[in-house]
Amino acid sequence: MPFITEDFLLQSESAKRLYHDYAKAQPIYDYHCHLPPKDLAENRRFDNLSEIWLEGDHYKWRAMRANGISEDYITGDAEPYDKFLAWAKTVPATLRNPLYHWTHLELKRYFDIDELLNEESAKSIWDACETTLKSDRFSTHEILRRFKVVLIGTTDDPVDDLCYHKRISESGINTKVYPAFRPDAALKILNGEAFNEWAKQLEKSSGCDCSSFEGFLAAIENRHDFFHEMGSRLSDHGLNTCFFPPASTEEASRIYLSVRKGESAGSEEADSFAAFMMLFFARLDFAKGWVKQLHLGALRNASTRFYKQLGPDVGFDSIGDFDQVDLLKNYLDALDSANELPKMVVYNLNPSDNYSIASMMGNYQGGGVPGKMQFGSGWWFLDQKEAMTWQMNALSNIGLLSRFVGMLTDSRSFMSYPRHEYFRRVLCNLLGEDMESGELPSDFDLIGSLVENICYKNAVEYFGMQAGSSE
Amino acid sequence: MPFITEDFLLQSESAKRLYHDYAKAQPIYDYHCHLPPKDLAENRRFDNLSEIWLEGDHYKWRAMRANGISEDYITGDAEPYDKFLAWAKTVPATLRNPLYHWTHLELKRYFDIDELLNEESAKSIWDACETTLKSDRFSTHEILRRFKVVLIGTTDDPVDDLCYHKRISESGINTKVYPAFRPDAALKILNGEAFNEWAKQLEKSSGCDCSSFEGFLAAIENRHDFFHEMGSRLSDHGLNTCFFPPASTEEASRIYLSVRKGESAGSEEADSFAAFMMLFFARLDFAKGWVKQLHLGALRNASTRFYKQLGPDVGFDSIGDFDQVDLLKNYLDALDSANELPKMVVYNLNPSDNYSIASMMGNYQGGGVPGKMQFGSGWWFLDQKEAMTWQMNALSNIGLLSRFVGMLTDSRSFMSYPRHEYFRRVLCNLLGEDMESGELPSDFDLIGSLVENICYKNAVEYFGMQAGSSE
Amino acid sequence: MPFITEDFLLQSESAKRLYHDYAKAQPIYDYHCHLPPKDLAENRRFDNLSEIWLEGDHYKWRAMRANGISEDYITGDAEPYDKFLAWAKTVPATLRNPLYHWTHLELKRYFDIDELLNEESAKSIWDACETTLKSDRFSTHEILRRFKVVLIGTTDDPVDDLCYHKRISESGINTKVYPAFRPDAALKILNGEAFNEWAKQLEKSSGCDCSSFEGFLAAIENRHDFFHEMGSRLSDHGLNTCFFPPASTEEASRIYLSVRKGESAGSEEADSFAAFMMLFFARLDFAKGWVKQLHLGALRNASTRFYKQLGPDVGFDSIGDFDQVDLLKNYLDALDSANELPKMVVYNLNPSDNYSIASMMGNYQGGGVPGKMQFGSGWWFLDQKEAMTWQMNALSNIGLLSRFVGMLTDSRSFMSYPRHEYFRRVLCNLLGEDMESGELPSDFDLIGSLVENICYKNAVEYFGMQAGSSE
Repeated sequence: MPFITEDFLLQSESAKRLYHDYAKAQPIYDYHCHLPPKDLAENRRFDNLSEIWLEGDHYKWRAMRANGISEDYITGDAEPYDKFLAWAKTVPATLRNPLYHWTHLELKRYFDIDELLNEESAKSIWDACETTLKSDRFSTHEILRRFKVVLIGTTDDPVDDLCYHKRISESGINTKVYPAFRPDAALKILNGEAFNEWAKQLEKSSGCDCSSFEGFLAAIENRHDFFHEMGSRLSDHGLNTCFFPPASTEEASRIYLSVRKGESAGSEEADSFAAFMMLFFARLDFAKGWVKQLHLGALRNASTRFYKQLGPDVGFDSIGDFDQVDLLKNYLDALDSANELPKMVVYNLNPSDNYSIASMMGNYQGGGVPGKMQFGSGWWFLDQKEAMTWQMNALSNIGLLSRFVGMLTDSRSFMSYPRHEYFRRVLCNLLGEDMESGELPSDFDLIGSLVENICYKNAVEYFGMQAGSSE
Repeated sequence: MPFITEDFLLQSESAKRLYHDYAKAQPIYDYHCHLPPKDLAENRRFDNLSEIWLEGDHYKWRAMRANGISEDYITGDAEPYDKFLAWAKTVPATLRNPLYHWTHLELKRYFDIDELLNEESAKSIWDACETTLKSDRFSTHEILRRFKVVLIGTTDDPVDDLCYHKRISESGINTKVYPAFRPDAALKILNGEAFNEWAKQLEKSSGCDCSSFEGFLAAIENRHDFFHEMGSRLSDHGLNTCFFPPASTEEASRIYLSVRKGESAGSEEADSFAAFMMLFFARLDFAKGWVKQLHLGALRNASTRFYKQLGPDVGFDSIGDFDQVDLLKNYLDALDSANELPKMVVYNLNPSDNYSIASMMGNYQGGGVPGKMQFGSGWWFLDQKEAMTWQMNALSNIGLLSRFVGMLTDSRSFMSYPRHEYFRRVLCNLLGEDMESGELPSDFDLIGSLVENICYKNAVEYFGMQAGSSE
Repeated sequence: MPFITEDFLLQSESAKRLYHDYAKAQPIYDYHCHLPPKDLAENRRFDNLSEIWLEGDHYKWRAMRANGISEDYITGDAEPYDKFLAWAKTVPATLRNPLYHWTHLELKRYFDIDELLNEESAKSIWDACETTLKSDRFSTHEILRRFKVVLIGTTDDPVDDLCYHKRISESGINTKVYPAFRPDAALKILNGEAFNEWAKQLEKSSGCDCSSFEGFLAAIENRHDFFHEMGSRLSDHGLNTCFFPPASTEEASRIYLSVRKGESAGSEEADSFAAFMMLFFARLDFAKGWVKQLHLGALRNASTRFYKQLGPDVGFDSIGDFDQVDLLKNYLDALDSANELPKMVVYNLNPSDNYSIASMMGNYQGGGVPGKMQFGSGWWFLDQKEAMTWQMNALSNIGLLSRFVGMLTDSRSFMSYPRHEYFRRVLCNLLGEDMESGELPSDFDLIGSLVENICYKNAVEYFGMQAGSSE
């Protein structure tokens, strides 16, 4: 029997029915990912499995390192096939890791391969995939069509000219692709050189004079307006924690000007500047009815050695144990007090904070917007069955699962679309189990509609970005 | 098939037998709740479902806000039926939230209604309940009798004259109703005005001159004596965390006098004053053999906007991530070192602290008192199946489940008595599963007796407050 | 039916097959414990159950205290049988605590007793065991042989002359017994008197002049060399948290000399001194290819009263809620940056830190060593089914379970060897469940080999200390 069956992860009859009758057919509204717009603009194709599957996939890289694979075969100069072979050798060592599921789900859904990947099967799988990759089914546009991806939210720097997004919208692709506004660079004044470089780019892209702080803020607002014109309704921030207390406008201006002059900011100054900016960003989002996303709690670049060698996002990040609650509360409360709180999705990386953050979101619900404050889906290390289940249980017990906007890939890879299937199977399994144990009414209309809402409909309503056609 | 069946939450044959043969018949010893003594003294009756079910129930309010219901229908001026209808519309959105279970359990046990509550069924359920509410079965006394509530511990301010408790004890009610001593106001010197107002009330109720700190302490002791005379054997404190280090008596006296003079205390002074007082309170409890309760870890009044508008306890509180361990250790160790440690129940609001707090309690067991230090039942956000199970698993693995004093409602509502049933079903389900998997001996005498102890008998022995008759 | 059956804890057919066909036959490679070398050197025998079972077992002591047993019967002067009887009375109160499982597993495996221990069965069990204890099967060597313990790693102070280890290796015992280097005393300069006493012992055992800091470090290295000669390949540290930042060599030297002169160190000095020493120890381990163990997160000696009365390790320790992540990161990153990071096993005591620490280990994998950085097995309070499962799930989801070096007893008692059986049953149950639900391939060769690796083979390869024969 193949490993990836029709009923993979569906461990009750009710789960199977929920998945097959309600979840499976829903389109994919992938509101947050890191796909490169260029690949979409150019309708990129891929030569081999290494290119589409291993490049940039730091999940796999970490597993390979832990399995004793030399760095040559990970980020080094080894040949594409040899890198793939190193990965193939590692796959059996990932049993019980989500990579084991994802790997075989992806081989099945993209290449219709049922064989388990390991050292022995590596060559034949490589060859079979190479053939398929050369067929017409493997352009990025075709992949999205095949997986019924009706919307993609990419992640973009405010200084980006979004030229690829323009080309995408003119390309005739069915999928709607929108940028998201991620101004992390605007907070990082501790590295003055990089900040000043970014400010110059901002000046250029906005056409606003950034020599004053007012000009800097105007430039950011200008870009926010531009993203809005381009269809974006979504911002995003990657933060250890929120920041508090904020600098006053005068103080923020003073700090800004001093950094622009080449002086170093202290870490307290940097925090209060960041706190000011985060309130400013929220006001922009609120004014235009956008959704703000916060990704909280990652400890990044833990290996100084590899950071110097390879830069960020190469598999040397982990889960922090920051104190989140007070800072998040202060941020949300400041906005709420001023009636400037936008809709918000907070993603949390430390499962120990699930309950506190889920309950925090409940403090700021209201104003007649269903599910205004979202406790976001399992993120990064938590994007797997155990932790997805925790997130959904926390949300269920502390808030309203029924208002959940559901899954996103958050991925850099075009091979990640089965993650939505994975999520839907986990969701249906959870609900099906509850139906069979009597913890939910055994009413398929009721629970099936919950499934449809979480898989697709809630996100459509919540984000308000128009989706493309699924056929 | 109705949703609330005979075997609701009982997912094995052993679980069913444990519940029906051992748990179900036990009386309810509700040692801690927030029921208004006035309602008991006056044997209050209720006009409609809004009055008995929605007034003051901030769990439901939070769910309604998250569901996009306007505040008018929550704490605003809408008509009782319209508020109920808004709640009825929200109920299907609470699937997997404990509210969904509680709602239907309460409709079943109080009104014998099997229908699921939603917009469509709202009117007929409202009408049916109105009829029942008018019958004789719906006075507060009758409710308690029906649910076999043999004891209630209310929560009272030391300055309270307990006049309603006197009237209750003269009312002929079967249930014994005792006050509990909750002196939170005595710690809150940061709000000098409110503190001084409270001190004046204390002076009046105790007859002790509170112009000196000795007088203040004597007044508190006087009230503690009075509560003891009134049958109380229980104190309670709602704290973010414990406090440490304590002020010396001289220092505490100096702080007290300065606040009484209208000067502002600093936050360090407030903490050391609170630490002093918490030791003082523990000594009072220890001397009289009382049980002290600590409710740790809530983050209260997170929405400044709604706090100004509506005050406390209206659904804007959440779970904190305070560092609990060192402060709790210092508090318990100081008392233990002086041989002044009373029996204590510590309730924890952040499930991430379950194991550390459960293990902390084990450091101070002893002195020949079985289960002297209790890791309390799942509280507030944790008063639901998932978190109750966590609390019982933590206690089982780290301490002695067999000595657990079990469930309390902690509720403001007369509709909450099925929470004991809920708890018992969860407990029996947990134990029944273990029996069937062979993790517990399949010996119904042994495990059934464990069930009876946790449901009722342990609490009777531990708290030592005499219960009323269950018939 | 007896409580401890063939299939105890094995709740599926796949679990049974994995355990009986793959796990059961594996020898035990107990790389970390606290068994007294003297008992092995002398091939100690035991007179009665109190001696072999209750002496030094602070798990049982805590349970007895929580059950209301007077201290006389725990650490006091009561007769051996009366202490045993007090324990027997407590056993039924430990239902759902791991002690209940361990107790009956130990009675079964050591004495072939199926009866449940309680007040009634106490006398007959005591008598039966006394007879068995007098037989030849009950010397420490025979116990190890019977449980196929092929290797033991004890825990030793660097100043120890390891005379018992010499005698053990000459005793003809099958089991290989190696010391482990645990230099906790070298960090504890806050207690200057104890530190100076230890430094004198170090001077004596090493023959190095410790009047200078260089001499002190040389003496430690000398002992590390000596442990290496004695076969040790393992160090160990018990720490609240890691330490950071380190003192410079000059600063560490200044602090050392001042403490040696009888001056008191401040707590910041002590931390930076400890941080210096921890880097020093890691370099020693790295240079010789040893494995370093960190035991993080215990809050020790929480009862001042009992600490004064009885000293450490008598059941008054619990789980801390220290911030672990930054300090651990700084420690590992400093070593990694200098290419001096040894293989390491980090044991964590607070389950809320499982995911963050498991993910932290992943930041420092690599260098071609499979599973170089280990997230260690459930420790102390976490050495039970619930928490073992959490540890294995965290490791599975965040890292590679397949590279896990598995179980260790960490015990002071010769009665603890069934803990390996316990672990293996939990492991096989987990994997068997996954096979039956389709989350793992139903391939017994594949999963069976995973089981064998985790139970035994990974540890052999990872630690590199030669094992004895299992027959």
